[in-house]
Amino acid sequence: MNTNEWSLPETELFDRIGAALEAGDDAVLATVIAVEGSAYRRPGAKMLIRPDGGAGSITAGCLEDEVRDLARDVLAAGAARVETWDLTGDDDVWGMGVGCNGVITVLLEPLGDEYEPVVAARERGEPVATATVVDGPLPTATRSVYTGGSFEGELPSGIADAIRADAERLLSEGGSDIRSVDTPDGEVEVFVDAVRPPPEVVVFGAGHDVRPVVELAKLVDFRVTVVAFRGGQVDDARVSGADEVVSASPRDVADLRAWDDDTYAVVMTHNFVDDRLTLDALLSTPVAYVGLMGPRKRFEEMREAFAEEGRTFGDDELDRIYTPIGVNLGGDSPYQIAYSIVAELLAVANDRDPGHLADREGPIHDRMEADSP
Amino acid sequence: MNTNEWSLPETELFDRIGAALEAGDDAVLATVIAVEGSAYRRPGAKMLIRPDGGAGSITAGCLEDEVRDLARDVLAAGAARVETWDLTGDDDVWGMGVGCNGVITVLLEPLGDEYEPVVAARERGEPVATATVVDGPLPTATRSVYTGGSFEGELPSGIADAIRADAERLLSEGGSDIRSVDTPDGEVEVFVDAVRPPPEVVVFGAGHDVRPVVELAKLVDFRVTVVAFRGGQVDDARVSGADEVVSASPRDVADLRAWDDDTYAVVMTHNFVDDRLTLDALLSTPVAYVGLMGPRKRFEEMREAFAEEGRTFGDDELDRIYTPIGVNLGGDSPYQIAYSIVAELLAVANDRDPGHLADREGPIHDRMEADSP
Repeated sequence: MNTNEWSLPETELFDRIGAALEAGDDAVLATVIAVEGSAYRRPGAKMLIRPDGGAGSITAGCLEDEVRDLARDVLAAGAARVETWDLTGDDDVWGMGVGCNGVITVLLEPLGDEYEPVVAARERGEPVATATVVDGPLPTATRSVYTGGSFEGELPSGIADAIRADAERLLSEGGSDIRSVDTPDGEVEVFVDAVRPPPEVVVFGAGHDVRPVVELAKLVDFRVTVVAFRGGQVDDARVSGADEVVSASPRDVADLRAWDDDTYAVVMTHNFVDDRLTLDALLSTPVAYVGLMGPRKRFEEMREAFAEEGRTFGDDELDRIYTPIGVNLGGDSPYQIAYSIVAELLAVANDRDPGHLADREGPIHDRMEADSP
Repeated sequence: MNTNEWSLPETELFDRIGAALEAGDDAVLATVIAVEGSAYRRPGAKMLIRPDGGAGSITAGCLEDEVRDLARDVLAAGAARVETWDLTGDDDVWGMGVGCNGVITVLLEPLGDEYEPVVAARERGEPVATATVVDGPLPTATRSVYTGGSFEGELPSGIADAIRADAERLLSEGGSDIRSVDTPDGEVEVFVDAVRPPPEVVVFGAGHDVRPVVELAKLVDFRVTVVAFRGGQVDDARVSGADEVVSASPRDVADLRAWDDDTYAVVMTHNFVDDRLTLDALLSTPVAYVGLMGPRKRFEEMREAFAEEGRTFGDDELDRIYTPIGVNLGGDSPYQIAYSIVAELLAVANDRDPGHLADREGPIHDRMEADSP
């Protein structure tokens, strides 16, 4: 399997799924539905398998080849199936491995038109959930799609009603889960899978330094819009990779789009007045994050300029301003600066406090002493 | 100017310089030698200008075009010059801009063979410093190169002796500085520029998940070696972009290379025994960082296996082990996981405590209140 395909960002994977659906290609969709033990990827991770190869990843690489082989059978049979691999300490090579140690259950299904609404919703930027039978008296892969508050599809309404609350919860929190539903014919296991649109990053700026930010943000699955002020500064080459490039005036920022709290703004116009107007406009929207490039002193000067106009900031506004922008990683090359910015976008979007993961679990020394014989 | 060229990682820039030297191409090297005010790039930042375009960056994009124009004059005249731009609040567009607000002084010189030892040393992985006249009675760009404890080049020995300690200090700390040296003919300003080889990352593993780590680490200027155990697992496609791919046995790790404290190891073989042997071997070397993929529990199991053999860890060893690996940024896609790992490599290599830069400067709220009228 090609490694670039394996590590495909989710948006590109959905693009592939959409293209396969549109072309009517033979393809199998493999979705992790359950994991026990140490997993590299979580339930909901997907892989698209076509006769000429696979895209996306469902483990750290330990099952992809087997899943691809199995996909051939699924295509030939034209029927979905659920397969479980128990990788717990079964041999020297993978025993105690990371992401290859555990019990992994995967749904494999011929990709069919009933998946089209999922791709379409994601493209429109709307959350959508699938509810799919993975065990019980109903055929495997019997499915309904939940979007806009209602189910459409093959699931009996009794089952749909029973899992509605789960679908709602997962849509807002993200994630995937298996729910058991009692039916007159017996217990049905339904895999509820929330497919949320990627978080949105809007970058204000049109300098050379925008492009590395766009490139890195795309790799980690943000949808990226670049806003350039004064049409003349727009240079597509500089923002290649952006999903959207908009030419606008600083006065239009608030009306530029529907802003929401899963949108993250990076302000790097390199122009004091433009940055100030942009900041002011963004704070009038629900955006979760306004990262402002430049030293703290520059923001303080900006705040003074605001104060002269009687504009002060509330705590809810200050909480959303991050300046100097970025996580403290060091380095001053364009990619290093961009790396620090996108690290912060990830942390804020995922509601994480950036720091060493090792520290989060407590000092390694203490653990050691506590466990030492 | 092409944006990809502008954001070129430093190693690629030096490759370009080396190629231009080898081909005897007409080219100008522009180096930031001093900055006052808000700068995007620090002294030592370099740009290579050839008749067909520029590579590398010296500001946030505000001077590159002017420097390119000036480079034409420098080539035509065949003589180096030093140019200063004062961008402090001089107009509406760049006034108070970030990285374009300040006084920036740049040395422009026709690229000549006397720069070859710098490129060669960097390629060999050896630190090297240049000492270059930028003002005073000697011709601009009169230069000596300092490596292996001695100066070679055009600088009079009196000047070389006067700046030897600076060169040594900058070689170990990194960075660049201007030193004034009194001579019988008057004061000479010498720009001392340490060019250090990139920090080294060694990734142990040959799974699909290695490649995004390699790709991101290269973008932020690490030199990357991938070590794959058991030759059969080496797959060049998986590690494309790595500077070196080595096939080895876990028992050979300590002897694999000259390890030093500017080397950072990522252990992600997905194999418990291999990871354990690798960890043990790495700790016998001076490597600064051993990032171990997998949950903390897995390391604790590893430690128990060590303890059964009477192997315990000292504090100096535990301090170098980072597990779970990575900065807490969230996300579970291959690129998101790799992003978290490379963020940690950057932070450790640059001796930073990863966290919001905004927090490092104190709460934005306090500043606000303190400054509020």
